[in-house]
Amino acid sequence: MNHKRIFDKEIDELKDMILKMGVMVQSLIHKSIDALKKQDMDIAQSVISEGEKVDQLDVEINEKCIQLIALRQPEASDLRFLMTGVRISTDLERIGDLAEDIAQRVAELAEKPLLKPLVDIPKMDQLVEDAVSLVLDAFIKKDAVKARTVWTIEKQVDELRDAVQDELSGIMNKKPESVPQALPLLLISRHLERICDHATNIAEDVIYMVEGKIVKHNIEELRKIIGKDWKEKKKV
Amino acid sequence: MNHKRIFDKEIDELKDMILKMGVMVQSLIHKSIDALKKQDMDIAQSVISEGEKVDQLDVEINEKCIQLIALRQPEASDLRFLMTGVRISTDLERIGDLAEDIAQRVAELAEKPLLKPLVDIPKMDQLVEDAVSLVLDAFIKKDAVKARTVWTIEKQVDELRDAVQDELSGIMNKKPESVPQALPLLLISRHLERICDHATNIAEDVIYMVEGKIVKHNIEELRKIIGKDWKEKKKV
Repeated sequence: MNHKRIFDKEIDELKDMILKMGVMVQSLIHKSIDALKKQDMDIAQSVISEGEKVDQLDVEINEKCIQLIALRQPEASDLRFLMTGVRISTDLERIGDLAEDIAQRVAELAEKPLLKPLVDIPKMDQLVEDAVSLVLDAFIKKDAVKARTVWTIEKQVDELRDAVQDELSGIMNKKPESVPQALPLLLISRHLERICDHATNIAEDVIYMVEGKIVKHNIEELRKIIGKDWKEKKKV
Repeated sequence: MNHKRIFDKEIDELKDMILKMGVMVQSLIHKSIDALKKQDMDIAQSVISEGEKVDQLDVEINEKCIQLIALRQPEASDLRFLMTGVRISTDLERIGDLAEDIAQRVAELAEKPLLKPLVDIPKMDQLVEDAVSLVLDAFIKKDAVKARTVWTIEKQVDELRDAVQDELSGIMNKKPESVPQALPLLLISRHLERICDHATNIAEDVIYMVEGKIVKHNIEELRKIIGKDWKEKKKV
């Protein structure tokens, strides 16, 4: 094999590692919500113990990138891809931590009956899992158009989080004794939203890698994507 | 100037950019809590508008690292320093976002009187600002010993967050009409804790850069540092 083909093979290995990490964190998110639905402490515990594998993979990906850069002195576009890989790995690691946070909230709910059947949180779960898989696919395929679609998901996730918060605040208001059951649910919706934020970070990095455009500051572009001013909510 | 000295100068410039970003996010955290204390919406607004400067600096630091790696093909230890710089910049950017989140919670509290004089949240603020400045100093000086001290701060921050949560849950329980005032405060304590988490991420990266040790998995070491099992809390 020539030098170029060895390098391509190594880049492929790196892609596989990042995808593996992506699948791992998706599974952690899924399991953490599954633990919530079933109020199953064994599943919650398994999320927390598996979280360490994600940390380990983060370190391995980082090492692999450093190694490839040091040994192969890649050209500009490959270098940019590797550097983006490092940043994405950081975000995936944080997503793993957030799945662990959800599992901890589930543990706080142990032995307490659920306030009500879960509706919006499982929807949020599905959306954030989709968001993670979408942005990783966009990274591997260097597809900025695909990366952009994450903002439509983020919008739905934010709306669901607002709905969860409004509903639970109302319940706490009417039945103050429900605070210990409501609060962990409210925080879980926040953890899920935060996971989606990390997916949008990844999308921003992919768009920057492909187009050299800084997305998060381009409010006009976001307006077009989601039909209204996404940053507006950030205004006080 | 010879090649080596030019490179050293560029590394110094990069250090300055990272320190500048650090000072910027510390100021955003400080301002966001100042906005809370004074219930001053102008200050809250300024946090949100200045957040974009942090995003811009994140991009510039990333670019500078890529440029230095591509043009200078640095040796192993410099390469590792640059790669750590990229990861740290990601964490600082997220800290900036969290300061914006605090400012948004302050906006939600607008026109509502504070439930009680703030005690623990300003303490948390001081601690997390210290944590950020400590880990950045450890990075610049490649000082793993200094980086490790962040876990004593994290422990205090976690305790204060628990105290805030217990106190506010109690208030909501007794006075359900206080939920709209209590909830933003509770979330602010979570945002501050999350900022501290990013500071510990930076510490982990610094220790890994200096010693090649993965810290977050080394529970025994953490036991020694903080005198009890920090991970224990993570157990379900």
